[in-house]
Amino acid sequence: MLKNLVAQRVNPDVPSALSGLFVNDPDPHAISFAAGSPNERLFPVKEMQRAFNTAIEQQGAHLFQYQSMQGNLNLREKLVARIQKWGHVTTTADNVLVTVGGQQAIELVAKALLDPGDEMVVEVPTYVGALAAFDLYQPTYYSVDLQADGLDLDELEDTLKRHPGIKLLYTVPDYHNPTGITMSVAKRQALVTLANRYDFIILEDSPYRDLGYANLPLPAIKSFDTQDRVIFVSSLSKILMPALRTGWLVADGPILDAILKVRLASDLEANGVIHAAIANYMEENDLDQHVNVLKDHYRQQCTAMVAALENDFPEEVSFTRPKGGFFDWVTLPEELDAAALLSQQVIPQAHINYVPGTNFYPGRDVHNSLRLCFSGLSPAEISAGMGRLGEQVKAAVREVRPVL
Amino acid sequence: MLKNLVAQRVNPDVPSALSGLFVNDPDPHAISFAAGSPNERLFPVKEMQRAFNTAIEQQGAHLFQYQSMQGNLNLREKLVARIQKWGHVTTTADNVLVTVGGQQAIELVAKALLDPGDEMVVEVPTYVGALAAFDLYQPTYYSVDLQADGLDLDELEDTLKRHPGIKLLYTVPDYHNPTGITMSVAKRQALVTLANRYDFIILEDSPYRDLGYANLPLPAIKSFDTQDRVIFVSSLSKILMPALRTGWLVADGPILDAILKVRLASDLEANGVIHAAIANYMEENDLDQHVNVLKDHYRQQCTAMVAALENDFPEEVSFTRPKGGFFDWVTLPEELDAAALLSQQVIPQAHINYVPGTNFYPGRDVHNSLRLCFSGLSPAEISAGMGRLGEQVKAAVREVRPVL
Repeated sequence: MLKNLVAQRVNPDVPSALSGLFVNDPDPHAISFAAGSPNERLFPVKEMQRAFNTAIEQQGAHLFQYQSMQGNLNLREKLVARIQKWGHVTTTADNVLVTVGGQQAIELVAKALLDPGDEMVVEVPTYVGALAAFDLYQPTYYSVDLQADGLDLDELEDTLKRHPGIKLLYTVPDYHNPTGITMSVAKRQALVTLANRYDFIILEDSPYRDLGYANLPLPAIKSFDTQDRVIFVSSLSKILMPALRTGWLVADGPILDAILKVRLASDLEANGVIHAAIANYMEENDLDQHVNVLKDHYRQQCTAMVAALENDFPEEVSFTRPKGGFFDWVTLPEELDAAALLSQQVIPQAHINYVPGTNFYPGRDVHNSLRLCFSGLSPAEISAGMGRLGEQVKAAVREVRPVL
Repeated sequence: MLKNLVAQRVNPDVPSALSGLFVNDPDPHAISFAAGSPNERLFPVKEMQRAFNTAIEQQGAHLFQYQSMQGNLNLREKLVARIQKWGHVTTTADNVLVTVGGQQAIELVAKALLDPGDEMVVEVPTYVGALAAFDLYQPTYYSVDLQADGLDLDELEDTLKRHPGIKLLYTVPDYHNPTGITMSVAKRQALVTLANRYDFIILEDSPYRDLGYANLPLPAIKSFDTQDRVIFVSSLSKILMPALRTGWLVADGPILDAILKVRLASDLEANGVIHAAIANYMEENDLDQHVNVLKDHYRQQCTAMVAALENDFPEEVSFTRPKGGFFDWVTLPEELDAAALLSQQVIPQAHINYVPGTNFYPGRDVHNSLRLCFSGLSPAEISAGMGRLGEQVKAAVREVRPVL
C-alpha cells in the first residue's frame, strides 16, 4: 500500500481545508459569492505589459538568470517605503522576503516555527488557507473568538494562562477573511503587550489592508513590535494581480534567519522576472492611485452587499458590516447547516453559490455560517443574487423557526 | 529567547547545506568554477519576450487572475509530449504538477513523504539542494556510493536488507550534480525492481537529462515504473532560463494526491503568466533546436575541462569524465581538505573558485573532494583557470605526498 508511505502530516483521509470550497454551477444565471478573487476587469494589464517589456529591455539576459533568495532589491525597497507610509512599520529591505503569494509566506512561517503538537492560537473563524498551511505541521490549535473590533483579548489571555506553551498566534487584523472585521488600534497594541508577556510570536497576515472603503489603513500590529516577535505578511494579489504570485513578509532576528533558511531549501528564490516587472510598474505608475480606483469600485459592491443583507434577510440571521476587503460573514440559526442548505436548496433552486463556513474553523465543528464575497460582481448582480439567496435563507429559517 | 520558539527542524546552529557554497572573490582575474548557473549568453531573450507579449495580448486580464493549482494545461501537455519523446514515459497532463523550479518539486516530495526519523537513501555525493530540502523533514539518511554507471546496487540492496523501513530513495540519474555520472539503463530497470521488492519510492531528479554531449537522453527510471512508485522531476532552468522558476514533476495515485494536497497548502499555485509565456515559446520555437545550440557550446566547455584535468593535475588526483551536464567531481588525496585548500591557497594565490565537496554528503564527513562547474566559462577561460588550479593542487599534493 503506497498510501502507507505518505507522511502522517498529509492525513490522506482528511481533505485539505482548501479543497472543495468552490462548487461549480454551470447554470447561465448562476451568481457566485464563493471565490475570493479580485475583479479582473480592474487589472492594469497595459501598464504591466509595459513594465515587463521595460524589465527585459533594460536587463536583457541577466534578468533570466538565478538572482536573489530574498527577491529583487528595488522591489523590496518599494515595499519597505509602502509599509512605512501606510502601516507605520520602520524596517529595511534586508528584513523583507518576497514570497510566492501570501500563502507561501504563511507556509514558511509554519515550517520555520511549528513542531508537531506545538500550541498555537487562531481567531475563529479564520482564513482557510492558513489552516491548510498550519495543518500540515500538526499544531495543537486553540480558538479565540472575534469581536466587532477584533480578537477577544480577555479570552486570549485566559487561553494563554491555561496553555503557557503557546508559541504562535495567527491573525488577519485588516478586513479579515472571512468576516471583514478589523482589529482596533488599542487591541493591536495590547496584543503585542500580551505577546511580550506570554512569550509568543504574532503572525500578522494583512492582504486587504489597503482596501478600506471608509478609512485609511491602520498602523500594523508590527508597528508596535518591541521585541522582534511580530511577522508581518502582505500580498500584491488583491491590489495588483494574483497571477503575479507575489507576497512578502517582514521579520527580524532569529525568526527571520529561520524563515530564510527554510525558504532557501523550499524553492531557492521566487520569480526575478516578475519582481523586476512589478518594481518597474511601481516606478512608472502610482500604485496608490490604482488602489483608489479599486476602492471606488469595491466600495459600491460592499455597500450593495450590506444593504441586501439588511433588506432581504430575516432577523434570525446575523452578519458583519465590513468597511473594507472582499468578504461578509453570515451566521444562520444554529439548527441550520450552511453546506447542506447550499447543496440541497441554494444551488439547485436559486443558482447562488457561497462558501460554507465549516472549513474556517480548525475543528471544523461549526456549521451554521457562510462566507459571501462581493469582489467579482457588479452592484446589480449583488442585489439580484442576494435577493435570490435571501429567499432561500428565509424559507430555511422559517422551517426551523416557524412564525406562529 | 526567541530562538527557542523556532521549530526543531530548523536547527539554527547548523547552516543550510545550501549556504556558504559560493565565496565571492572580487579580483578582476578571478575565475569561478563554483556556481552551477547556465550560461546566460545562450538565453533566448527575444523569443521569450515575444512569448510574454503574445500571452498578454491573447489572454488579457484573465492571464493575471488565479488560475490552476497544477499549472497551465497547455504547458503540461507539452511537457508530457517531451518526456514521452525523450524519456519514454507515458503519462497525462493530469499527472503533471508545474512547480517553482525543480527545488520546489523536491521539497514537496519531502513534505508529502517524510516524517521525522523516516529512513531514506541518497547516493553520495548528492545534490546539495536536495539535502537542504530533506534535512528540514529530519529523515535518517543512508548513503550508497556512486559507481561509473550510477548507484552501487549491491550496496543498496545490502542497505535495504539491513533497514527494511526505508521508504524513499533520491537519485539524479542523468549527468548527476555534482559528479556528472549517468546511471546505465540496466541499473534503472534493476532499481525499479528493487523498489517493488523492498517497497520504497524513487525520487528521480533529472534537470540535466537533455544536456548529453555524446548521446541522446536515456529512458527515465520512471519509464520502467510498474507500481506508481517513481516520481519524476525535471526543470526548465538549465535548458531555458532559471528565473522562470519553472520545474515539474510526474507522479501517480496516492503519491500524486499527497503531493497535490501539500502543494495547495504551500503556495496555491505557481506563476500562470510565466507558464503561458513558456507554452507560447514552445509553440513558436523548437525547444529541441535550442537545446542543440546549448549542447554545442557546453560540449566544448566539458571537453576543455576534462582535457585540463588530464593534463594539468597530478596522478594522485582522480576525477570523473562527464558526458553531459555542468559538473566534474575531483577527489584529492585523503589527507587534503578541499575547503581549507580553497580559502587558504587557491583563492588568495590563484583567484580560482570551486565548491568544496563536504556539503554534498548528508553526514558532511568527507572533506577531500570538490565540484567544478564549466557552464559559465569559455573553453579558453576553462584552460587558463584549470592551469592555475592545477598548480595549486599539485603543490598541495606534493606537500602530503612528497616525491622522494
